[in-house]
Amino acid sequence: MSRVCIGIDLGGTFIKFALLDESMSLAGALQLPTPASAGPDGVIETMISGATELLDREGVSAGDVVGVGIGSPGPLDLDAGVVIGTPNMSDFVNVPLRDRVGDGLGIQTVLENDANAAALGEYLCGSGKGTDVMVMLTLGTGVGGGIVIAGNLARGAHGIGAEPGHLIVEPDGEQCPCGQRGCLERYASASAVARYARQLIERENRKSILTEVLGRKGDLDAADVNEARRAGDDLAAEAWDRAISYLAVGCVSITRLLDPDLIVLGGGMAKAGDDLTEPLRRHFTRLHWTIDTQKTVLALASLGNDAGVIGAAGNAWKQFG
Amino acid sequence: MSRVCIGIDLGGTFIKFALLDESMSLAGALQLPTPASAGPDGVIETMISGATELLDREGVSAGDVVGVGIGSPGPLDLDAGVVIGTPNMSDFVNVPLRDRVGDGLGIQTVLENDANAAALGEYLCGSGKGTDVMVMLTLGTGVGGGIVIAGNLARGAHGIGAEPGHLIVEPDGEQCPCGQRGCLERYASASAVARYARQLIERENRKSILTEVLGRKGDLDAADVNEARRAGDDLAAEAWDRAISYLAVGCVSITRLLDPDLIVLGGGMAKAGDDLTEPLRRHFTRLHWTIDTQKTVLALASLGNDAGVIGAAGNAWKQFG
Repeated sequence: MSRVCIGIDLGGTFIKFALLDESMSLAGALQLPTPASAGPDGVIETMISGATELLDREGVSAGDVVGVGIGSPGPLDLDAGVVIGTPNMSDFVNVPLRDRVGDGLGIQTVLENDANAAALGEYLCGSGKGTDVMVMLTLGTGVGGGIVIAGNLARGAHGIGAEPGHLIVEPDGEQCPCGQRGCLERYASASAVARYARQLIERENRKSILTEVLGRKGDLDAADVNEARRAGDDLAAEAWDRAISYLAVGCVSITRLLDPDLIVLGGGMAKAGDDLTEPLRRHFTRLHWTIDTQKTVLALASLGNDAGVIGAAGNAWKQFG
Repeated sequence: MSRVCIGIDLGGTFIKFALLDESMSLAGALQLPTPASAGPDGVIETMISGATELLDREGVSAGDVVGVGIGSPGPLDLDAGVVIGTPNMSDFVNVPLRDRVGDGLGIQTVLENDANAAALGEYLCGSGKGTDVMVMLTLGTGVGGGIVIAGNLARGAHGIGAEPGHLIVEPDGEQCPCGQRGCLERYASASAVARYARQLIERENRKSILTEVLGRKGDLDAADVNEARRAGDDLAAEAWDRAISYLAVGCVSITRLLDPDLIVLGGGMAKAGDDLTEPLRRHFTRLHWTIDTQKTVLALASLGNDAGVIGAAGNAWKQFG
């Protein structure tokens, strides 16, 4: 077996593990449920035992492991390797995750923000291969993301960079839980799509397939809205288009600041495929300046939910390789 | 004499020349009027003769010159070293400026966008010294700027990066000559300050010191507005504050994406000093998220109009040093 790095992606539902060899090829993977109720100690134990299990299964000796990369939700203190807190696991407060996992495994370990790790994964092994400037947007409950310039994550001066979900797209707009108003993720996330549809149903009392869906499920998600849109539902089409129009505003601003080769679209909403990219490209072209021909490409991520764990392992290669 | 690089900053009014030694200290400077009416040939001739004159005056032998850096308005083709066009010199179309100046001087030469050069200048020798991520905003007729990450200009994948003046701060907002709507520079430049004041006078028929100034001069500039504001004029205060509030929106979006140590403010409007930074910091704090304590510093540029020529020379050091 050649030398590998271990990637560990800590999610609210699953902990993912992957081995990545020096050619950035996947050499093994494992997924375990996150024992969230067991608190940080239980989660850390699972991270250590899962990584050990994967190494055993693939017959990798400890001497062939170059390093471990962890991707975790944040905010994080990257320099200290500490999880300051995380929305989905409330007892994860000031946990020195890097050192506890690293010491447990006896392998040098690096910690990274999960969204940055996913961006690095797409850059190293996915849609972003060969780009010079790549921005990833992860469209889910919120809008996360990461920036890769010349092969390096642009983490910012204090490790809190690449929060494209909190670009201000409407001054004095809707209140965001972050404390700002008018953040992109309030206008262009999967949650925003569902919220627009509910608002149109409730406030305007308009006819829509979604009225029945909402009555039956008690809630709507972005996939419901896109499905109704595909079935010709006008209200659904309006909600979908509104979110995508704002997403295009964000993409134009990102393009003006960073001039990327590529903006990669991931997260749950990217499962809509062409239903996302086709109208997004149309709005992007409509909003884009005319000084220069449009060069930035908007494309879907290709690694799906594995981008984070692959990027975490890739980050270990960058750090220790 | 120690080894030096030559910086040449091509402006619409002046061509500036500077010698920068390896410690990034200024070792001589010269300024000549831009012979704009003489066309590209005349301008290039002045660039060559001015550089030669400065070397002679400072007693620098050709063997001690490491390289030449030119800062020019654009758009540019950086790879080819060509000025595609420039708003203030309409006959500058597809001019191979890098090679013509380099060949004329017999010294290796690199071309850079003037706003990027100014940002690099502030990073190397001005307010941005020692920063990890620095963004410069140049507040004049428009809003230009540059980004320096880990000592390198973030030029983008196609050399058209760092155009913060064209971040969209108002979707469907005012038409910008660039073809977009709602660009930051339509809302937060020195021109915007003056336009707001004129609009308030003309549309609302309000009392203001500026009514008399406008009648007398036939026009207003940002300095007039700030002066009236300092004299207690409410209309002027409103115009000034409106622009600065939008500038703060732009600064928050930049901070969310790049997490800079420092946003440096240059250009004509920065001559207002604390009258710019004090309200800008107040709006920035008001609009900034509460997830994290505010770490990005907003500060004035320190090199004034020399940032561009110093940065052009610094760029030659980076390229050839």
